[in-house]
Amino acid sequence: MSRFWSPIVATLSPYVAGEQPRIDDLVKLNTNENPYGPSPKALAAMRAAVADSLKLYPDPTALALRQAIARRHGVAPDEVFVGNGSDEVLAHAFAALLKHDRPLLHPDITYSFYPTYCRLFGIAAEEIPLRDDFTVDLADYDRPCGAIILPNPNAPTGIGLPLAAIEALLAGHPDQPVVIDEAYVDFGGESAVPLTRGHDNLLVVHTLSKSRSLAGLRVGYAIGQRPLIEALERVKDSFNSYPLDRVAQAGAAAAIDDAEWFDETRGRVIETRGRLTGALRQRGFEVLPSQANFVFARHPDHEGAALAGALRERAVLVRHFAKPRIADFLRITIGTPEECDRLVAALEEIV
Amino acid sequence: MSRFWSPIVATLSPYVAGEQPRIDDLVKLNTNENPYGPSPKALAAMRAAVADSLKLYPDPTALALRQAIARRHGVAPDEVFVGNGSDEVLAHAFAALLKHDRPLLHPDITYSFYPTYCRLFGIAAEEIPLRDDFTVDLADYDRPCGAIILPNPNAPTGIGLPLAAIEALLAGHPDQPVVIDEAYVDFGGESAVPLTRGHDNLLVVHTLSKSRSLAGLRVGYAIGQRPLIEALERVKDSFNSYPLDRVAQAGAAAAIDDAEWFDETRGRVIETRGRLTGALRQRGFEVLPSQANFVFARHPDHEGAALAGALRERAVLVRHFAKPRIADFLRITIGTPEECDRLVAALEEIV
Repeated sequence: MSRFWSPIVATLSPYVAGEQPRIDDLVKLNTNENPYGPSPKALAAMRAAVADSLKLYPDPTALALRQAIARRHGVAPDEVFVGNGSDEVLAHAFAALLKHDRPLLHPDITYSFYPTYCRLFGIAAEEIPLRDDFTVDLADYDRPCGAIILPNPNAPTGIGLPLAAIEALLAGHPDQPVVIDEAYVDFGGESAVPLTRGHDNLLVVHTLSKSRSLAGLRVGYAIGQRPLIEALERVKDSFNSYPLDRVAQAGAAAAIDDAEWFDETRGRVIETRGRLTGALRQRGFEVLPSQANFVFARHPDHEGAALAGALRERAVLVRHFAKPRIADFLRITIGTPEECDRLVAALEEIV
Repeated sequence: MSRFWSPIVATLSPYVAGEQPRIDDLVKLNTNENPYGPSPKALAAMRAAVADSLKLYPDPTALALRQAIARRHGVAPDEVFVGNGSDEVLAHAFAALLKHDRPLLHPDITYSFYPTYCRLFGIAAEEIPLRDDFTVDLADYDRPCGAIILPNPNAPTGIGLPLAAIEALLAGHPDQPVVIDEAYVDFGGESAVPLTRGHDNLLVVHTLSKSRSLAGLRVGYAIGQRPLIEALERVKDSFNSYPLDRVAQAGAAAAIDDAEWFDETRGRVIETRGRLTGALRQRGFEVLPSQANFVFARHPDHEGAALAGALRERAVLVRHFAKPRIADFLRITIGTPEECDRLVAALEEIV
């Protein structure tokens, strides 16, 4: 605390990201990074952007990148908003679309940044408990509210909702903005982007950190009808006109355009997820059905924190959340087959 | 307007950046970019960072970059905060340090993003008029206030305050945070960074966009004592954990380390500024005394908007602000000697 702080600062509860330690020969399965690396075409585009032209400001509208995203999703470029990682896109969405007199609804077990944004922007929120099997029951969202945000697939459970369920949710809340956070959708989920055409209350958020393997580049985007995108633009242009640098714009556009690399690498992640799920179940773990690039698993005889600690001693890092309902689970990122083998071998020593 | 907008959205007045048009053979002197390009060592560091490792998140604390900045300024790394351009650093400073019961003071003619931040964060502000000669009179800041922000040198005037004046301001407001925005200080101003040691109310903000020639990379930083930096970190970690990508962190650190390139290129800008100032005065312009990489000039017989328009027809872009008191001025970025010659030649055709 300091007398110089704006009053809000002391009330914040900053987000705590998964650790990025330096340990030799580490198997790093704690922050849902993609093991396969970015598209070679994206790397080439970034190398070309590292040039004298960095003396000039980037395009504040990131038009070429928005055009690439629009092509991929079959929408118009002005229905696309881009930002410095989907975290920044989400932050702007919370400020621009999710603050109303009535509360924002989100699941109790979900991306832990949501309550942090609510504190920052003074948004009243209501946490809707997942069912006992960790699925979302959309009937629970039929209550007075100002807005709704749902990750689909959810994190850290990995469980997805079918498109028909999302469509019913949208139809049931025609006067509330609904944000569907699809950070993990490319690993087997159904994207709600096609529903933006018929639903003016829908904003869909994507990231290039997972399925495009560009966590180190910080690019995310949102798709929705013009009035929603305009709200994001107004907040963005009141905060930072140029959030995406020249290298990031070039690399992200090339990554979006490289459908072949995208399909090949996400296919490998999905395949390894199936193998890892089987291997964990064979060893006594309960594994929730995942549509993401991670699995959420617990062992009936071992506490989550103890398991995570024992894995860390063996240079295998997974994510553990010391939170009600999920304290016994480990969130394990899908690595390469070799990394997953090392994880399973380490677990065999422990359980 | 849309019923889905959070109420604040309609009240915003988004910042309008200088245009980034595509005109062949353009002399672009409108957004204060550096004509000399980034350090070759910075370019090499960025090329090396364009690699498979982009699949991994960047260091959320940007430690290596903060260490480089700390070395340059003789402070500790934990007295340094970094962000996605100094605009993001300023945005976080407005939210974290400048919102109090009493108003924020800033000059009436200054960086036009300040009133935009005030709207976004609901900060009451009081504009303190510059003197008739466009200098800041610090006696005017001796009034009840919650905080103060001053650019030094000021923009778009280019006029700087001496360090002793800043020190007196700090001593006169021991209970208010004072932010000195030194975006242009490296072109001849006196930096207040050394005053951070003795003044716990001082935050100094720098950018790599101007004197480091990295407008296209989006990196800025702030220096102050721990409690001020901690406030910025708390807001940042409630908004976006990873604002600086891997390429930006690597390039910025190398640029900061390359003192030789920095001194050579800023020296050339300062030299050209002197030459351009003389040439403009010879042709009847009043030119304010600039310590920045631009000059602010007006002609007694020509309106600013008309001059800017006539220059644009000749493929020379300068910045014009249609605002009270300064509508007759042009803000002209210091380009290469050749670019400044083309500007002067174009003006000779017009005036």
